Amino acid sequence: MTYSFKNDYSEGAHPNILKALLETNMNQEDGYGDDSHCLRAAEIIRKRIGKPHADIHFVPGGTQANLIVISSILRPYESVISAESGHINTHETGAVESTGHKINALPSVDGKLTPQGIRSVLKEHYFEHMVKPSMVYISNSTEVGTFYTANELKAISDCCKEEGLYLFADGARLGSALCADGNDLSIEEFASLVDVFYIGGTKNGALIGEAIVINNESLKPCFRYAMKQRGALLAKGRILGVQFEEFFKGDLYFDLARHANKMAAKLTDGIKNLDYGFMADSTTNQIFPILPNTLIKKMMESYGFYEWERVDEGNTAIRLVTSWATKEEAVESFLEDLKCFGLEV
Amino acid sequence: MTYSFKNDYSEGAHPNILKALLETNMNQEDGYGDDSHCLRAAEIIRKRIGKPHADIHFVPGGTQANLIVISSILRPYESVISAESGHINTHETGAVESTGHKINALPSVDGKLTPQGIRSVLKEHYFEHMVKPSMVYISNSTEVGTFYTANELKAISDCCKEEGLYLFADGARLGSALCADGNDLSIEEFASLVDVFYIGGTKNGALIGEAIVINNESLKPCFRYAMKQRGALLAKGRILGVQFEEFFKGDLYFDLARHANKMAAKLTDGIKNLDYGFMADSTTNQIFPILPNTLIKKMMESYGFYEWERVDEGNTAIRLVTSWATKEEAVESFLEDLKCFGLEV
Amino acid sequence: MTYSFKNDYSEGAHPNILKALLETNMNQEDGYGDDSHCLRAAEIIRKRIGKPHADIHFVPGGTQANLIVISSILRPYESVISAESGHINTHETGAVESTGHKINALPSVDGKLTPQGIRSVLKEHYFEHMVKPSMVYISNSTEVGTFYTANELKAISDCCKEEGLYLFADGARLGSALCADGNDLSIEEFASLVDVFYIGGTKNGALIGEAIVINNESLKPCFRYAMKQRGALLAKGRILGVQFEEFFKGDLYFDLARHANKMAAKLTDGIKNLDYGFMADSTTNQIFPILPNTLIKKMMESYGFYEWERVDEGNTAIRLVTSWATKEEAVESFLEDLKCFGLEV
Amino acid sequence: MTYSFKNDYSEGAHPNILKALLETNMNQEDGYGDDSHCLRAAEIIRKRIGKPHADIHFVPGGTQANLIVISSILRPYESVISAESGHINTHETGAVESTGHKINALPSVDGKLTPQGIRSVLKEHYFEHMVKPSMVYISNSTEVGTFYTANELKAISDCCKEEGLYLFADGARLGSALCADGNDLSIEEFASLVDVFYIGGTKNGALIGEAIVINNESLKPCFRYAMKQRGALLAKGRILGVQFEEFFKGDLYFDLARHANKMAAKLTDGIKNLDYGFMADSTTNQIFPILPNTLIKKMMESYGFYEWERVDEGNTAIRLVTSWATKEEAVESFLEDLKCFGLEV
Repeated sequence: MTYSFKNDYSEGAHPNILKALLETNMNQEDGYGDDSHCLRAAEIIRKRIGKPHADIHFVPGGTQANLIVISSILRPYESVISAESGHINTHETGAVESTGHKINALPSVDGKLTPQGIRSVLKEHYFEHMVKPSMVYISNSTEVGTFYTANELKAISDCCKEEGLYLFADGARLGSALCADGNDLSIEEFASLVDVFYIGGTKNGALIGEAIVINNESLKPCFRYAMKQRGALLAKGRILGVQFEEFFKGDLYFDLARHANKMAAKLTDGIKNLDYGFMADSTTNQIFPILPNTLIKKMMESYGFYEWERVDEGNTAIRLVTSWATKEEAVESFLEDLKCFGLEV
Repeated sequence: MTYSFKNDYSEGAHPNILKALLETNMNQEDGYGDDSHCLRAAEIIRKRIGKPHADIHFVPGGTQANLIVISSILRPYESVISAESGHINTHETGAVESTGHKINALPSVDGKLTPQGIRSVLKEHYFEHMVKPSMVYISNSTEVGTFYTANELKAISDCCKEEGLYLFADGARLGSALCADGNDLSIEEFASLVDVFYIGGTKNGALIGEAIVINNESLKPCFRYAMKQRGALLAKGRILGVQFEEFFKGDLYFDLARHANKMAAKLTDGIKNLDYGFMADSTTNQIFPILPNTLIKKMMESYGFYEWERVDEGNTAIRLVTSWATKEEAVESFLEDLKCFGLEV
Repeated sequence: MTYSFKNDYSEGAHPNILKALLETNMNQEDGYGDDSHCLRAAEIIRKRIGKPHADIHFVPGGTQANLIVISSILRPYESVISAESGHINTHETGAVESTGHKINALPSVDGKLTPQGIRSVLKEHYFEHMVKPSMVYISNSTEVGTFYTANELKAISDCCKEEGLYLFADGARLGSALCADGNDLSIEEFASLVDVFYIGGTKNGALIGEAIVINNESLKPCFRYAMKQRGALLAKGRILGVQFEEFFKGDLYFDLARHANKMAAKLTDGIKNLDYGFMADSTTNQIFPILPNTLIKKMMESYGFYEWERVDEGNTAIRLVTSWATKEEAVESFLEDLKCFGLEV
Repeated sequence: MTYSFKNDYSEGAHPNILKALLETNMNQEDGYGDDSHCLRAAEIIRKRIGKPHADIHFVPGGTQANLIVISSILRPYESVISAESGHINTHETGAVESTGHKINALPSVDGKLTPQGIRSVLKEHYFEHMVKPSMVYISNSTEVGTFYTANELKAISDCCKEEGLYLFADGARLGSALCADGNDLSIEEFASLVDVFYIGGTKNGALIGEAIVINNESLKPCFRYAMKQRGALLAKGRILGVQFEEFFKGDLYFDLARHANKMAAKLTDGIKNLDYGFMADSTTNQIFPILPNTLIKKMMESYGFYEWERVDEGNTAIRLVTSWATKEEAVESFLEDLKCFGLEV
């Protein structure tokens, strides 16, 4: 039996979420997100993010959130700018392209975009023989565990406004980003800087579900048509509403993210103490320590995790992901074993 | 407070399903359908339908099931034949067309296709200036509450084999069809007659989820790519596996369908006793009684249901849907009120 | 050797067109429609149709014109209303659906839409579970040889304005429609009643090419992007410009259409004199006489044409198409043979 | 008045081509590529390339050729590997993505792919969360004027066979490649190494048109459906057949390419004699000399060409394109002026 640090969706849902599903189970509700829970959850979120006029929609998963938002906004010949490492550009099996749109992918060491990078794409794409970049996609936290500071996001937001680009933030791990050590963005500020974003539930303790938040008026009309067409308007939308109500009626959403980050920080500290380096500097719930291949092999007997990137002949960066459900004892045991096995190999 | 006969997804999930989710909640499982529950559920279903080599995949909803199956099978210029009333042709916001394919829609009084109708489409579409019909879509039970008999389905299946068409059955309400009074198809026989079908969970007591079953070898490769691209490969695929395991480890799936049908039959009998007619002859969980408009208005004060189709100046067909959760007292109360109010108006 | 009445594109181009291509052949011009001919042709057409601010684009063919116009206007979940017999719904191999959009097809005896029909579609499509009809597609002349009168087109145009629908007219055979006996629409009036339309060249004596005319300001931006993406922005766009310049610098375009109609009228008169009936009442260049099957067989030995629709056991409607190139002697010979063979069979 | 070296489609068609169009103009022919000219042209090409069983189809332009070939071959989740500089990846406004497919773009200094590069993409794309690379796209000559040697193409072809990838060659400038100084590939050998390719007409003296050649049996069925759906099945397909018949009944196609290359070589020699460098080493009809900005400005007063890439503070690479129509006097005059102005600035 191994303990898994493979990802943040290895367990089911936080117990409070399941409890809420149980308690509301036999109430009759309208279908397709018109139920009382979705309405209430939307209202609570609007208040929490300080956007009383935002439109909020709940969908089952992140790939759906991304493809629906992007395809509902772009005209056929328009493209979206993303970091090369962006989830839409790597691990969604061409979902965005399947809706007809090119991704302009920018190399990036830390998984983040910059105004300079964005403008370089615009400069190159100036006439009708090329796609028309009309949207910027960022993820926060990023796929390599980094996050955007207030200044960084503000710079991108300003750039997008100046250049007439929509700004969309993938928040599959938004909780972890906003609770990260060093983060200086509140969710209100974050919400103010983007046209549309989603708050990830699946990777932060929900059974399933993400909440799409639309600030820009021009993007609001007919969004439910777009959802239905892509199969994201769930008959029992209530189960999404119930979960996000539970997340945001108190501070559960951020509590869970904080726990995940804390466990990652503990891992980071312990691994640093053993003098191993890291592929990237992360204070979110994904960390990328570099370990000797022999040690990795040994650790894999007791722990689940992915090898991420070969660093040199004898060393490889691995990915460790913590979550709302990660047990402190498991972290401690991992560090202990790392120490022991590290001495052996 | 009204009691709703609007649909079969007004409540959450059957208690056993929630119980199973709770009990397995904190186990660590692999993501994306590679968990032990999905594997076991698939194995149980294969046995139950007598198809040891079938590929089985779990997706969140019916529109996704339909659009993924159809778009993964057809070449760009190929089309799918459906009854005009087919769900893909009416209530999926053009999901199939959004993947690039035309639907050849055939008029049908009872929501069912016939070999004759299918062949009439083929005869019309004979050259490269027209789409190439390559697949037949049926729903069982249909959108108007009818179901296919063994002879009817066999005739369509034979026709498809002779004409080189794939046969796909939408089983959003498959349980209700196979448990309907008058049905002479076992699920084994049903499975043997189609290339691919799905077993609907959402409308039969699941929290969420449908199980796609692929019999035809040529349709199996790379199906998970198609799922991922459309956003249907859930990170926490386990929650789909857990539910279908619960459905099919015993006879829960069919028990729930039988209850829904029984409640509908009770409604039908009661309404017939009051001498009202029906728009269609249904023994599944959707019935379409024709009532005077004034009576409908009165009944709507206490019960939720949809007006379906205007019949004449003073009468309208309504739709009543029962489910695994429909309470017998609610049915009795509905019939009593119908009798009382019917005398008044 | 048979003489063909199969269609209006059996010959190459009108000699004046070829001459113009020859004379301008060795001039160096800019590519992609930025040449002097396209610019001049656009200017001449704007004047001729009384729309000084129209945007005009030249594309190789009709299917491209249709799919580019429609896909560049509609949002992903929006649909286009067409007569069931509309070219986009029948003979373009699902080109519109391949761009992601459903066609709402309305039955029609004479190939024409009416405000009543259009409104019936809108009434049915009222919520996000169905596509959103946002555009009306008509063809003038229609696929069965009829044309829209001023009153008919005005009624549709008013309906579209009231209902917020774009109106697009497929003018593959616009010349024939506007020169038809009984037509009371000038090209200026016609242009004023639609948001966008195209003037067909291929079927009226061009080697190749159609001119898309955009009146509605909101449809103008980025249209060249849409053209390029679908492969319709020809490197040697000049050859389209040269032809339309030749068409509209004088009255050649209408002269050719008039000749085609005159030849069709001569056929119609002759056939009527022989007491044969017609499937439709047409004064354009497509006519549909009903002939005995034995006579059809005999005539096919000397003339090319299509059988269109079986009328009864012994009779079939055929389609005869005339063009700018149809020789009067061929028409006379056809009528003579029809008379002779008609006596025999 | 300036002389243009902007591209190879500044003039109309080679006089022989126009003559052939004129001579065949009034013959009646069947539509949509079923005419006698298309049939004959296909037969002649099959013989010329030594592929008696190849399927040959004529389409209006290169972007259409690319998008039809690629979208007709790939399954929805499959992608195509291309050099970053590949035409489909840069200057087709996302045409391939608009059909739903991702392009895996590989950096390349000389516009060419290698087996090593191709395999690096395959290694990265190994599971269903990523697109499935299933096709390789190359252009010959490339967008930067280089061409594939026999060894280079054979290596790619072998790699594709081993890895189960289709190999598609964009031959917009195939003539120039196969007639280039240093080329060691005959058209027969070239044809044997790829699954499908197209022979470019537009950029080699045709009025319009490209010939798609399909060698691989599995790619042949229903290709005309794919063409029609994308609007590439021209009603007057005859005009494409006539031109390719003219190209290949003798050696006109290669004669024209040889002339273009000869003019480019003359420019290259002259520019080298003046001691200017080049961005790339090209013996095809596109060359990229590096000139001082002041000289470029001066030359632009008398000659048309594009600035291609800034090299340093004071120098820029320009693109000069020659064609079948380039006049030797224009080349001489360009070189003379370059010498004179070069002394001045």
